[in-house]
Order: sequence, then structure tokens, then C-alpha cells
Amino acid sequence: MSQLKGACIIGQSGGPTSVINASAYGAIKTALGEDCITRVLGACNGIKGVLDDNLIDMGKEDPQELAYMQYTPSSALGSCRYKLKDPDEDDTDYQRILEIFKKYGVRYFFYNGGNDSMDTCNKISKFMLKNGYECRVMGIPKTIDNDLAGTDHCPGFASAAKYIATSCMEVYHDARVYDTGMVTIIECMGRHAGWLTAASALASYKGCGPDLIYLPEVDFDMDQFLAKVKAIYEKEKKCIVCVSEGIHDKDGTFIAEYANKNMTKDSFGHAQLGGLAAYLASEVKKAINAKVRGIELSLLQRCAAHCASQTDIDESYAAGEAAVKNAVAGITDRMVGYERVMQDGKYTCQIKLFPLDIVANTEKKVPREWINAAGDGIEPAFIDYALPLIQGQTKLPMEDGLPRFVHLKKVKA
Amino acid sequence: MSQLKGACIIGQSGGPTSVINASAYGAIKTALGEDCITRVLGACNGIKGVLDDNLIDMGKEDPQELAYMQYTPSSALGSCRYKLKDPDEDDTDYQRILEIFKKYGVRYFFYNGGNDSMDTCNKISKFMLKNGYECRVMGIPKTIDNDLAGTDHCPGFASAAKYIATSCMEVYHDARVYDTGMVTIIECMGRHAGWLTAASALASYKGCGPDLIYLPEVDFDMDQFLAKVKAIYEKEKKCIVCVSEGIHDKDGTFIAEYANKNMTKDSFGHAQLGGLAAYLASEVKKAINAKVRGIELSLLQRCAAHCASQTDIDESYAAGEAAVKNAVAGITDRMVGYERVMQDGKYTCQIKLFPLDIVANTEKKVPREWINAAGDGIEPAFIDYALPLIQGQTKLPMEDGLPRFVHLKKVKA
Repeated sequence: MSQLKGACIIGQSGGPTSVINASAYGAIKTALGEDCITRVLGACNGIKGVLDDNLIDMGKEDPQELAYMQYTPSSALGSCRYKLKDPDEDDTDYQRILEIFKKYGVRYFFYNGGNDSMDTCNKISKFMLKNGYECRVMGIPKTIDNDLAGTDHCPGFASAAKYIATSCMEVYHDARVYDTGMVTIIECMGRHAGWLTAASALASYKGCGPDLIYLPEVDFDMDQFLAKVKAIYEKEKKCIVCVSEGIHDKDGTFIAEYANKNMTKDSFGHAQLGGLAAYLASEVKKAINAKVRGIELSLLQRCAAHCASQTDIDESYAAGEAAVKNAVAGITDRMVGYERVMQDGKYTCQIKLFPLDIVANTEKKVPREWINAAGDGIEPAFIDYALPLIQGQTKLPMEDGLPRFVHLKKVKA
Repeated sequence: MSQLKGACIIGQSGGPTSVINASAYGAIKTALGEDCITRVLGACNGIKGVLDDNLIDMGKEDPQELAYMQYTPSSALGSCRYKLKDPDEDDTDYQRILEIFKKYGVRYFFYNGGNDSMDTCNKISKFMLKNGYECRVMGIPKTIDNDLAGTDHCPGFASAAKYIATSCMEVYHDARVYDTGMVTIIECMGRHAGWLTAASALASYKGCGPDLIYLPEVDFDMDQFLAKVKAIYEKEKKCIVCVSEGIHDKDGTFIAEYANKNMTKDSFGHAQLGGLAAYLASEVKKAINAKVRGIELSLLQRCAAHCASQTDIDESYAAGEAAVKNAVAGITDRMVGYERVMQDGKYTCQIKLFPLDIVANTEKKVPREWINAAGDGIEPAFIDYALPLIQGQTKLPMEDGLPRFVHLKKVKA
């Protein structure tokens, strides 16, 4: 195992989570402590920061200030959604990346993101290898969507899940305040995988959650949905429904598109107005004439750091740390992931490395057997899976009664 | 000061807050400890519970379980929006209330709610007095809207304010993750008073809040709004706007109605689809073709007990406690409120009693001088006012990583 001396670059990519910065902090802090890593550089806005030579010197940050990163939502270094081309078709970007790596003597590259970021990681890794430039490339996962292959779960999912379950419990109480009828539709993120929406079942497990839960893993039938809501409403006078933004009919058409399709008749260009929750609320209102409210959890679910899971923060930090430790130890071309190991019936999480090419561009969905037969509820197996992940309250420091988030100096390299 | 022996009734009314149960718990716990209060009854769904003889015996609840009330959002006893008639026109309801009071030997009546509830309190108090039935009637305020006259602030406001400010800080980070442009419109509750929306300025005070804030206290001008957003967006590539649901034009028409008006052309009955945030987002998109997102904080802002202010919880408890203590001491026909007393530059909150009739049916608005001249921002005086109120994190107990809310047995009286 060779000792490789050089600078490292850490970049963040894709949509925000509450804990992506905990992973970045884990990597940065560990890298700053490694003798063979001569300089720790942050890429501003992910790979775009590398291409644009827009790098910051993480060693110039105050170490105490840097520690606030682990509690700060969104990507402190900035993110991007830039997709690298296939290097066999156009290797311009890769040549530029190699040029920057050479300029700064970069021998370690850590990339913190979702599926696309693992794809970026994979392509860079293979290109460097092919061109004989020694560089250890490690992917550090993140995604609230929890849809990365291989790993037991993804950093970021648990905090979003905890926020969703908590909010559903609170809305449950709110929606029951009057003795009059009320139907509430809550919309969660998740275009293709329903993990986040399934997290609302944690609220039901605590006795105050949705009556019906719809994921993109099962075709959505509007008539069945309306009949179910009606039946529950007539019996209980209350009905709470949780839906993934990505629910679709048997032909694969997103239900959210129904709203937009109908909306095109409006001459005021309001096609984008109603979200899925609002659309379903209006359909329920037409069908059963109940008081209905649609709630879209929107960006809040992916950035509510004040409600993050400390387990998620700790594990995210560990993922960043492990990426650096393993790279220094000679490993490359891998994504850090988690393996669930039950010890005496108790959950523990161990780091496991996965080949980048099996992770990139695949989506892990909620197993069909974790969804009930009718496709409108969640089985206990999911609760067993998710519950250990949401344990512990964030240690986010407060100042003036509000979160104290990180302020980076961002000194240019 | 006569010692009056008898039962008491505690009822809750109006929309939920995160801490209305803290007040109810303060009243219930204190009443259970008073010798002259022979029985503590809870009215199910407010005054409707009295009219329907639907009362529960709070003494039958487990005291330890009852303590969870102070951290549980929404009204644990159930609420209503029932408005009593003018007793000079129709005193049927009042006769019925008197009948129930006599049936249970009720000599104390505590009503926990907003403007309308203080009106109910006032009418009942005056009716009992007129009919020679000795009963001490006390109002315990609550409203996230913070619009009750007399009191320095209202129980429930601070917790909603803390949630709004926290969420705005988090969305600020989320909205800045990419280096591409983005406009975010956040909609807060508040039909006539802008206190909640003003709370978003606490996020700006911490350096990560909205650029523009619009309250119902100032007429809203769409052209000026669009021009301001455009100017900020062109300079910063980001713009965050916070608006009250009740913003209106100079003719008094709610801006939210613009959306609905335009929507009536749609043949699918979608008039209710778009909220204000979605409507403003679509107007901004048309005007400057930026990526825009509308976020409605919806019910979450009034029930997010996990983000409640412990100051608010403590003060709300104190309000309930003071209602009982004062009634037992011989006082009646008052609402408990707060007086702000600065001691050595430090905020303290003292209980003060207000006549019910000056509180009922008036609305306290944000002072014009706390809003900037242009009507799109908040002055430091509001920060000084609001900051002490949001201090301290809720001591909400957690179980399985999720809030542990109260479970009442609700034994019928």
C-alpha cells in the first residue's frame, strides 16, 4: 500500500439535504489531519468549481467555525447539477479536470452527492486511471431520496424522514382540533422512489399519522383513492393522506400532470400553480364535498436541519471520514456506504465500500412487500428499517433562539 | 375576598397553536391543587361541550400523562368556532350554559382562545352577573396571530414565529445551493395582522432571511413588487420574499383573490388550487422568467410543537395558572395577559389582567413604524420586540426519536 502525497479536492453536488455538510465536514476535518494530504481544497459548486478553477482553501477556515458545518443544511461549498459527457465522445471536461489536478497537485478527489455524482466520480476515476494519473477517487453518498444502490440507507434520508414523521404527527393533532370533518393531503418529495413518503408511516406507528399512504412504487388509481377517502371520512370525519410527488397511473402518467393538463385551459398561464396535494384536495372536494387541505412539504423536508436525526449526522460524518481514511490507505474508485449489522437485536451501522460503477445510475425502490397489498399503506418491515435511523436530536447549536449555521470565509486557493 | 367553593370548567376554542395546551395544563394543574375547586372539568370542543353536556373529568387523568399536555400542539380538549348570539336577542344558549353550570355546581369558568373566545367569555360573564349566578369567568389568551388588544404579546405567537424564522433560515440555505438563479416566495398566515410574516425578519437579522417582506398592514402593489424582485434578482441571482396570506391592494382586495378570480375561467373547478405563494410565483415567472418556487407554510407554522419556544411554553403555562389563582382570589371578568418589564435591559414578562370587553373583538396590528417606509421590510424595533419571546428550545420529550404527545383518557363527567 503506497503512501501517496498530494492535495485533495472535496466537492458537493446535487440537491440539498440537512446533513450533506456533516459528510463534507467529516472529510475535510479528517483530510486536514492527514500528513500525506498536503492541502485541502473545496470545489465551489461541485465539479463546476474544478472546471472553473474556483477552489477554496479549507485550511484557512477557523477550525471551530468549520465544526458548525455538520449542523448546517444545504451544501456549504455550493452544489451543481452538471453532468459530465461520456469521455469517449468528448473528453474536454476531463482534460480540464486533469489540468487542474496537476496544477494543484491533487491526488485525492472526494465527491459528495447522489446518483449523478457517483456517475461523475466513476467517470473521473476511470479517466485518471486510463491516463496514468494517480489519483484516489471516493464517492460520499447523500440523498434524501434514499435511492442509491448497495448501501443500506443514504445519508440525509433519516433527517428528512424524521421531519416528515414529526410534521405528520403535528398535522394529525391540528387536523383533529374541531369536531367538524376534514381531509388533509400531504405531499412529500420522491419522483421514482417512495422512501420519504413511507416515512409518514412512522407517525402512524406512533398512533397519529396518515390513514392512507401512496408511493410511486404502486400504480395510483384515482377512483379507488376517492372511494377509500370517502369510506374513512364517513366513518371518522377525518382522513389524512400522504402522497409521493411521483405517484402515477397505470400508464405511467404522473398524477401531478393531470392537474397541469387540466390547467392548460386557463388563459393566464397558471399551469404551474397547483401542486399534487392541491390537485388531489380539489378532486376530493368535488367527490365528497368535505373541507380539504393540501399541504406540500416542499423544500422544508430537505433542509429542516433543526429537526435532523443525530444518528444521521453522526453516520454522515463517519462516511466523510471513512472516504478519506480509506483513500489514504490506498483504496480508490469506491463509494462509501453503510451496512446494517444487528448486534443482540440492536442496530449498528458499519461502513462498507461499493464499486462506483454499480452505484451510479441505478435507483433503489421501496420493496413491494413493504407496501400493503392494496398499495395504500406501509408494512411493519419498513418501520423496523427506518426507526433506528431517526434516533437522536441534532446537537445544532442555537444563538438568539435560532440555529447557528456555519459562515465560511471561502479564501480562494 | 370571598372563598367560593365549586367545580370549574376549562374549555379551548379557535384555531390551534403549539402551546394552547400549555395554558390549559397550567389552569388544570393549578385548579386540581386548589381546595375550593371541588372538581376540574374539561369541555369537549369548547363551549359546544358545555352546551352538549359533553364534559370530561380532568381529575381522572394520570397526573404524569397530563404533564405531556404542555408540549402537545393543537387543543387536547378539542376546539370549536361556535359564536354565541347576542343574549339580548336570543339567550337560549346562555340559559343552557347556566343550566349546566348549576348541574355540576360550576363556579369557575376558564376559556382559552382568541378574540372570539374572549367575546364568548365576556358574554357569559355578563349574563351570569345579570342573572345573579356567582361564577368567576377568566379568559386565557392564545393566538399565533398575536392580534389581541392589551397584552404585550399572545401565547402561541412566539412558537410560530420561531418556526417561521427557523424555516426561513433553512430555506435561505437551500435556495442558495446552486449558482443558478432562483426566486422563492414564502407564504405565512395572517389575514389582517402581519405579526407572523414579520417574524421572518428574525431570519434576516441572523443574516439569512428574506430580502422582501410584505404585511397586510400596508397596501400591496404588484408592479412595485415585481420591480423590486427583478432588481434584487438581477443583482444577486437569488431573491427570497415573505408574504402574509392577507396582503391586499389599495382597494382592499386580497391578492390571493386575484388568483382565484383568474382561476374561475377554468372549467375544472380548480379555483381553490393555487395559494398566494403559488400565484405570486407564477406572476414573478411571467415577469422575469426566473426559476421560482412558492412555499406555503400552511398548518405547519401553527402546530410545529417540536420547534416551540420554551419561553412561550413557560409563559403560556403561567397564563393558565394565573387565571385560576386570580379567580380563586376573587377576581372575575378578566383576561390574563402579559406586560413586558425590562429589568436592567433584560426582558421579563409579568402577568397583567385586562377587562374582557376591551379585549374582545379588536385586532392589534403591527405598528406602521415597525415596517419600513417602502412597506417591504421590517425595522429593528420589531426584532427587539420579538427576539426575547423565541428564546429556549422546547423540552418536548421524545420517544422512538419522535415527539411524545399526550394521550388523555377523557373520562366523561
